[in-house]
Amino acid sequence: MSNSLTGIAASAGIAIAKAFRYEEPDLTVEKKSGVDAKAEIQAFDAALEKSRAELEEIKEKTRREMGDEHAEIFSAHLLVLQDPEFVDAVRQKVQDDEVNASFALDEKANEFIMIFESMDNEYMKERAADIRDVSKRVLAHLLGKPIVSLAEIKEEVIVVGDDLTPSDTAQLNKEFVKGFATNIGGRTSHSAIMARSLEIPAVVGTKTVTHDTKQHQYVIVDGNDGTVIIDPSDDELAEYRSRQEAFEQQKAEWAKLKNEPSVSKDGTHVELVANIGTPNDLEGVHNNGAEGVGLYRTEFLYMGRNELPTEEEQFDAYKQVVESLDGKPVVIRTLDIGGDKELPYLDLPEEMNPFLGFRAIRLCLEMKDMFRTQLRALLRAGAFGNLKIMFPMIATLEEFREAKALLEEEQQKLHAEGVETGSDIEVGIMVEIPSTAVMAPQFAKEVDFFSIGTNDLIQYTMAADRMNERVSYLYQPYNPAILGLVKSVIDASHAEGKWTGMCGEMAGDPIAVPLLFGLGLDEFSMSATSVLPARSQLSKMTKQEAADTAAEALKLSTADEVQQLVESRFPMA
Amino acid sequence: MSNSLTGIAASAGIAIAKAFRYEEPDLTVEKKSGVDAKAEIQAFDAALEKSRAELEEIKEKTRREMGDEHAEIFSAHLLVLQDPEFVDAVRQKVQDDEVNASFALDEKANEFIMIFESMDNEYMKERAADIRDVSKRVLAHLLGKPIVSLAEIKEEVIVVGDDLTPSDTAQLNKEFVKGFATNIGGRTSHSAIMARSLEIPAVVGTKTVTHDTKQHQYVIVDGNDGTVIIDPSDDELAEYRSRQEAFEQQKAEWAKLKNEPSVSKDGTHVELVANIGTPNDLEGVHNNGAEGVGLYRTEFLYMGRNELPTEEEQFDAYKQVVESLDGKPVVIRTLDIGGDKELPYLDLPEEMNPFLGFRAIRLCLEMKDMFRTQLRALLRAGAFGNLKIMFPMIATLEEFREAKALLEEEQQKLHAEGVETGSDIEVGIMVEIPSTAVMAPQFAKEVDFFSIGTNDLIQYTMAADRMNERVSYLYQPYNPAILGLVKSVIDASHAEGKWTGMCGEMAGDPIAVPLLFGLGLDEFSMSATSVLPARSQLSKMTKQEAADTAAEALKLSTADEVQQLVESRFPMA
Repeated sequence: MSNSLTGIAASAGIAIAKAFRYEEPDLTVEKKSGVDAKAEIQAFDAALEKSRAELEEIKEKTRREMGDEHAEIFSAHLLVLQDPEFVDAVRQKVQDDEVNASFALDEKANEFIMIFESMDNEYMKERAADIRDVSKRVLAHLLGKPIVSLAEIKEEVIVVGDDLTPSDTAQLNKEFVKGFATNIGGRTSHSAIMARSLEIPAVVGTKTVTHDTKQHQYVIVDGNDGTVIIDPSDDELAEYRSRQEAFEQQKAEWAKLKNEPSVSKDGTHVELVANIGTPNDLEGVHNNGAEGVGLYRTEFLYMGRNELPTEEEQFDAYKQVVESLDGKPVVIRTLDIGGDKELPYLDLPEEMNPFLGFRAIRLCLEMKDMFRTQLRALLRAGAFGNLKIMFPMIATLEEFREAKALLEEEQQKLHAEGVETGSDIEVGIMVEIPSTAVMAPQFAKEVDFFSIGTNDLIQYTMAADRMNERVSYLYQPYNPAILGLVKSVIDASHAEGKWTGMCGEMAGDPIAVPLLFGLGLDEFSMSATSVLPARSQLSKMTKQEAADTAAEALKLSTADEVQQLVESRFPMA
Repeated sequence: MSNSLTGIAASAGIAIAKAFRYEEPDLTVEKKSGVDAKAEIQAFDAALEKSRAELEEIKEKTRREMGDEHAEIFSAHLLVLQDPEFVDAVRQKVQDDEVNASFALDEKANEFIMIFESMDNEYMKERAADIRDVSKRVLAHLLGKPIVSLAEIKEEVIVVGDDLTPSDTAQLNKEFVKGFATNIGGRTSHSAIMARSLEIPAVVGTKTVTHDTKQHQYVIVDGNDGTVIIDPSDDELAEYRSRQEAFEQQKAEWAKLKNEPSVSKDGTHVELVANIGTPNDLEGVHNNGAEGVGLYRTEFLYMGRNELPTEEEQFDAYKQVVESLDGKPVVIRTLDIGGDKELPYLDLPEEMNPFLGFRAIRLCLEMKDMFRTQLRALLRAGAFGNLKIMFPMIATLEEFREAKALLEEEQQKLHAEGVETGSDIEVGIMVEIPSTAVMAPQFAKEVDFFSIGTNDLIQYTMAADRMNERVSYLYQPYNPAILGLVKSVIDASHAEGKWTGMCGEMAGDPIAVPLLFGLGLDEFSMSATSVLPARSQLSKMTKQEAADTAAEALKLSTADEVQQLVESRFPMA
């Protein structure tokens, strides 16, 4: 009899194939005393070097196939291999205690992991996960155990494992790995994000899938609703094959909209644009028919390196993006570092509440040289296409005025130097702090556009850290308070003849789309893969019915009531 | 020639007296090897015991004279003395290395301080400060050095020091210590809070006052504007004596208002009530003519102990307060723990952003038994006076409904048990989360009252941690966004026939008072010592001029513009 499990739908689509049980090798170590310390240290160094070479290769492959953003994690792993505190501690132990390298490595790795985990700090815990992933690899080499490489799978399978580490996921070959299912993880865990990026159906957090699945059993992974069926009956196979077909048909329907405008049933036009992190994401923008870039996050230019990027490096990246978009709008956000994003070489102070701390524009207005360099690169790239500049985390009008004054100073300097810049570059702000949403009427007189950053706006408006599981129930995009703030921002911009976009996850959410359209949102910026479904969804509703629903939603009391209302009005949402 | 310094005005009033330079004894230690370890450990234990006895005494004196809240810090200090990890590490070192106890203590204390400080976490840094304060005391006893006790000052002086530790400030005798001036500290540092509570004029953060002042020189401390004048001229002495007199006169004027109602020039009445932390604060409430208690923080009942307070303990404390207020309103806030306030015995997880985390009502709705106990105690105390219940950190209507349902369940149980409870106890919420301010029209249909908690509302609305110096410029009570949210809350409550109070620091701020009065705030809850000045201020303005100013302020763009507007309209603000 088949066995059905429910997990978290992590990546859309339906996959049916035989299970490939992915298990880690046995890395138990034995302590040996009185060893030849020199030989052990040599073996350790060789294992380090082998691991380094492998990780460089994985990083390069990831960068090529998935972009800089995903490759970033392997830079962190490579840093662990080079961390003298860690590596020397192992060598020292071998030397001092005359023990075998595998024992010393295991002990020191556990010590470091324990220290970092006990710090009860998210950054440090990630560091612990890095050390765990890397030291397993080195240990496997020391013990002569094979590292099962998912890259070597050469038949169609569904990978079933406890969890997939970044190095595991990076090696998945889309051609053969049709889907995966894991015991642990959530919608925003690393493996889930990778699966969506690779467009592989995935269900995570099933708790028991490795326990329930035998090698080579047939498995169905329904990444649309989070179901995993092990050893399906013929009826189930037939049903899911037909669902799979329907899903593929829908995708084909969506694909037809690639070069169509984004219009509602009654012909109201909006802009559906994409969020990108690096020029590597441009392919997805074009493939999914986005009408521009609504958010180009510039952080990745600053990450995975030891010093600030130069003006030239930045100029090249920005120019590449605006040129590729060929006249379509590209909204580039200035550096949004701090909070959950750190730059080791800036040596920022650790803060008690980093999400309420010294980040983004607050930091750029202090580190003016760094900021001016970015502004110059942006101004220059503006000469090559339709570039717009957007400042993140603006809380007061003074901050916006100061940032804009710096931009104007750099423009004048460039002109004095005879350097060409974009003309009439629009300058807007992210609306992600409640004060700015409330003050939108005052801001609308001075900015060229707003882009609502819902990830942060929701967490500040609800006073709930979106990364903290204990308060995640308060991350409520459909809360009438959020809709109310969104409405004030849109209304304020229109009153001054300006426009409002949205670049948080909410902009591509099928429940939110009718509400946002109804509230009058002008530009929806989302993951590239959401553009076509959203275009399809919009084509089936009228502006009036969306506006009526939004008006009703604003008067409701809870997020649940709003969701029910939308689902009753727009059954496909 | 006299020397004038500018620091931070930490506690109002003007003091003139001779300087008492408060310096710490020289606690340099020498290392002695080959000592009699047993004797050294005995000496160490004796020094610990002596320190313990002294700290118990200081704690008791502080509790008696200043209340539980201030005594709290010494419970933390006593815990350091009993911390086996710390104390045993010292004994172990004496034993293992055969070194003198003072050397071992100094080394271990420095180690622990370094570890806690390096954690870059505010709680841990406070822990480091505790260890420093306590180990100095133990070390002084070991070295036979006198601990200069401020309690022994028997002539009128101004204490001049680098900084005053909690144990220093607790020993100040108001009769002789007329004021103090320090090099370091800010308006919210411990010594500043203590000074306000003792009503001793103080200026902190002068940077150089210990360097610039000789023992017994005359010193003027102007705690109203932050000036310190060393060795004043006769003219300066005369001028400050007359200012001192004017300030005393003003205080006398205020004192006359003690039993008067709080009414504006044109007879509009509001309620001026006080914030309290423990029943010990009741004396201040009565002495300053507060018309009730607008915020009774119940956290202190839960702090400085090893287990939860029982229903009886809580009932006694609540009953004492409502009885003492004799029919005047007492708004009691249910437990607001988490964030910057921890309870060691609850063992809550450390969070990356505690201010956006699992705290207050979020925690109480999870730890229902603890919450029910408090609700029962409150309901029972309600039979003895005019008690109102208020839930903190409400972000959604669901949370309010759930909390209120628990309250009703406990009320029914008590009635079934034949226990008397208050009848018609008003149940309200703190408005300190932006979503709740935006949703005020929906909340107003279900709650009995609102109390706006500005300390948190400002930090969430501006997305700036109010404890983080790097973003403290964003803590802007006068920002038009804050005023806009306050207005929506007040308007929403009035539309449903309910009332709105405010219990953050803003409610007693002379710049804010005209704006809040103009916006229609019904109840202002503040430190007891601010009640009379606010009553005096209100008596000099009309409702119309306040309302006009508030309406104008809402249209301004920045907090600075609002402040200038108020100062131009109400010169005394």
